[in-house]
Amino acid sequence: MNKIPYKIYLEESEMPKKWYNVRADMKNKPAPLLNPGTLKPMTAEELEGVFCKELVEQELDDKTPYIDIPREIRDFYKMYRPSPLVRAYCLEEKLGTPAKIYYKFEGNNTSGSHKLNSAIAQAYYAKKQGLKGVTTETGAGQWGTALSMACAYFGLDCRVYMVKCSYEQKPFRREVMRTYGADVTLSPSDTTEVGRKMLEKFPGTGGSLGCAISEAVEAAVSNEGYRYVLGSVLSQVLLHQSVIGLETKAALDKYGVTPDIIIGCAGGGSNLGGLISPFMGEKLRGEKDYRFIAVEPASCPSLTRGVYAYDFCDTGMVCPLAKMYTLGSSFIPSPNHAGGLRYHGMSSVLSQLYDDGLMEAVSVEQTEVFKAAEQFARVEGILPAPESSHAIKVAVDEAMKCKETGEEKTIVFGLTGTGYFDMTAYEKFNNGEMTDYIPTDADLKKGIDGLPKVPANL
Amino acid sequence: MNKIPYKIYLEESEMPKKWYNVRADMKNKPAPLLNPGTLKPMTAEELEGVFCKELVEQELDDKTPYIDIPREIRDFYKMYRPSPLVRAYCLEEKLGTPAKIYYKFEGNNTSGSHKLNSAIAQAYYAKKQGLKGVTTETGAGQWGTALSMACAYFGLDCRVYMVKCSYEQKPFRREVMRTYGADVTLSPSDTTEVGRKMLEKFPGTGGSLGCAISEAVEAAVSNEGYRYVLGSVLSQVLLHQSVIGLETKAALDKYGVTPDIIIGCAGGGSNLGGLISPFMGEKLRGEKDYRFIAVEPASCPSLTRGVYAYDFCDTGMVCPLAKMYTLGSSFIPSPNHAGGLRYHGMSSVLSQLYDDGLMEAVSVEQTEVFKAAEQFARVEGILPAPESSHAIKVAVDEAMKCKETGEEKTIVFGLTGTGYFDMTAYEKFNNGEMTDYIPTDADLKKGIDGLPKVPANL
Repeated sequence: MNKIPYKIYLEESEMPKKWYNVRADMKNKPAPLLNPGTLKPMTAEELEGVFCKELVEQELDDKTPYIDIPREIRDFYKMYRPSPLVRAYCLEEKLGTPAKIYYKFEGNNTSGSHKLNSAIAQAYYAKKQGLKGVTTETGAGQWGTALSMACAYFGLDCRVYMVKCSYEQKPFRREVMRTYGADVTLSPSDTTEVGRKMLEKFPGTGGSLGCAISEAVEAAVSNEGYRYVLGSVLSQVLLHQSVIGLETKAALDKYGVTPDIIIGCAGGGSNLGGLISPFMGEKLRGEKDYRFIAVEPASCPSLTRGVYAYDFCDTGMVCPLAKMYTLGSSFIPSPNHAGGLRYHGMSSVLSQLYDDGLMEAVSVEQTEVFKAAEQFARVEGILPAPESSHAIKVAVDEAMKCKETGEEKTIVFGLTGTGYFDMTAYEKFNNGEMTDYIPTDADLKKGIDGLPKVPANL
Repeated sequence: MNKIPYKIYLEESEMPKKWYNVRADMKNKPAPLLNPGTLKPMTAEELEGVFCKELVEQELDDKTPYIDIPREIRDFYKMYRPSPLVRAYCLEEKLGTPAKIYYKFEGNNTSGSHKLNSAIAQAYYAKKQGLKGVTTETGAGQWGTALSMACAYFGLDCRVYMVKCSYEQKPFRREVMRTYGADVTLSPSDTTEVGRKMLEKFPGTGGSLGCAISEAVEAAVSNEGYRYVLGSVLSQVLLHQSVIGLETKAALDKYGVTPDIIIGCAGGGSNLGGLISPFMGEKLRGEKDYRFIAVEPASCPSLTRGVYAYDFCDTGMVCPLAKMYTLGSSFIPSPNHAGGLRYHGMSSVLSQLYDDGLMEAVSVEQTEVFKAAEQFARVEGILPAPESSHAIKVAVDEAMKCKETGEEKTIVFGLTGTGYFDMTAYEKFNNGEMTDYIPTDADLKKGIDGLPKVPANL
């Protein structure tokens, strides 16, 4: 008999009551957002034109280690959390590895991913502020779905700009959002200045996350009672997502398990940042040591092949500048890229941790990722999202290294979501038609050359 | 503070170790399957040409109340079970009802429904018998997906005949099955005698569950090392699905809750039968009383408008005769019918219980069902399958009656699955294009007139 169950569920009473803000324990704080005009740090007042008031406070707070989760948000969390920490017994057996593999499964909710953790928080603060609604962008659609659900719950209007090529890959995501009452516009659209310019310049474009962000921001600032919300990248999002890591740590602690390696896929960094935060806190405070691995697609390699510099968060250059590992705001991953993880930059928090050598990063090609996804689906019974499968791939690689060395390492990875809306990509893979594309140095140079000119000391 | 959590999860150690066989407690046993040639009860030997040996034993056993769940099946159950029993606090608040509403949520697995509970059992016995593979049919695709997952786990070949019109509504279901290594053929097909005849007679037909069953049975008996498996209707399936009811009862007992009304959607009866079995056992033994409500679509009303008679289980008339509430094996629901629950008959166990007045049945129209689904999705955060939404609709109706009378009834319903692959139907609903269709008496007469002639005393 195994002492550790297949799935570790915390009791409702064991769920986190506070989020953990890893910035409080960072010696080198993430660089502040800059006003693109003045190149001075954005003030709360400036940010409040775009973002909800309390979220701005969270965005700027790099001192307070724990922040209360309001009761209304905890009540919503109870509908789909705690999420299970699963011991991958079947995968271990299939691989024949002495490694012990765990995954934190965030896909058991209708949005299909971890994005709901921050969506409900952002919707709550918008409601509390008395706003009419929020605007946002969505790529793969996980964030837009999550926000639609959160807005339906609090009775807020929800306007989503969905990247056109993602919509074509995942048509049904739009219907989920509409079922939750959201208004979904394909981006680029003719409803914004930025969108119209983009359509004029690149007729027939499939769009990009950067452009959809610009459209959503424009829609927020030009409509009374609206603010813009974002599902990743921002420090506030990592704060909300810390609920993933806090639950994971509580579940492991309950059984006296200490992980050696913690692995997460990384697009803008919301899941990875949330998963590793409390463990990183221990490392920063010198209490424990862990290996952290960020996994990104070879077709959008911001950490492994980008530069650490101030850049625009969006294509339309209407957002503040953020210091991050970036491929340049004009970078768009190759059209053969399936799934999310297509953002040109990376969370400032994670970028700083990576730059400080506290975290590793690897990039993987999507055909290998889908192979790992298929294997995982067959033995663990969960059809993973392509995004999450990046983490599976590297977890399997690490487990196979243990098989060679005989080491009984404990590996934890984030299984951020399910792939039910990604069947077009799976179909390609099933038909043997999936391809890989790694951008050349020349491809990347174009985006990086377009970075805004910011003094080197910033 | 509420004493009862949002989600009641049993511990792994509290999961059922035996299935419960409600037939053991029935005074009037369900009528036996008949050989269509001799009109004599099918013997084990006759059934073993089509079905796996141990499953035949379970099919014929109406005496043993508890049957051990093999360890291998319990291990698989641990990957996605126990499923949560959810207290629908948010729905109760939204409705303003004094009723207490619970639902047993079976959708948190990749097959998206309760079907996996029986699929893994049937695959296990096929493997144990040393078979190469199994054949089956699928309509909405939940069963086919579940069986594909189960077969992948045990390394069995899996051949699925998928009803053509369902495939067109749910194209991505096929890719999930293929990802699990299943071979999926659209039905009617030219790979079987039955299929070829059907295509000749009705070129361009969208197919039916009854026809797909005939094809799958033909494929099983004409291939060495294959047997046919079925996801509903059969008594063995209800036996496996009793895990739903056993867990529900254990979770309620843990908190001292006794339900007044138990509601389930009913197509072939697998979910409803599984959910109510242990409660029905108490009623049959005179220990407790409950109201049971079967909910069926108005467009396929086997209990509410069918007749209780011996009928073929399939269109091709290759299966044994079963005594059941039926619309006739030639009955095909109107093409506007979305989702599953499209079988012409009903489990013999449930048919007998219904005939004995131990259970009620109601039929509901699909537009009302989708309204309830949307409301539920918005407040409870789960996008329900159209099938499950039939139960939601009636649970809400009963809760609203309590609001009128002030009664604090406890209502339990089965939320059998998620609607992620049903977005074509949701899209229709979102666009205001969903229609209802209730067959006329003349429509139904045709199917019922075609029933096989069996002496009235059988």
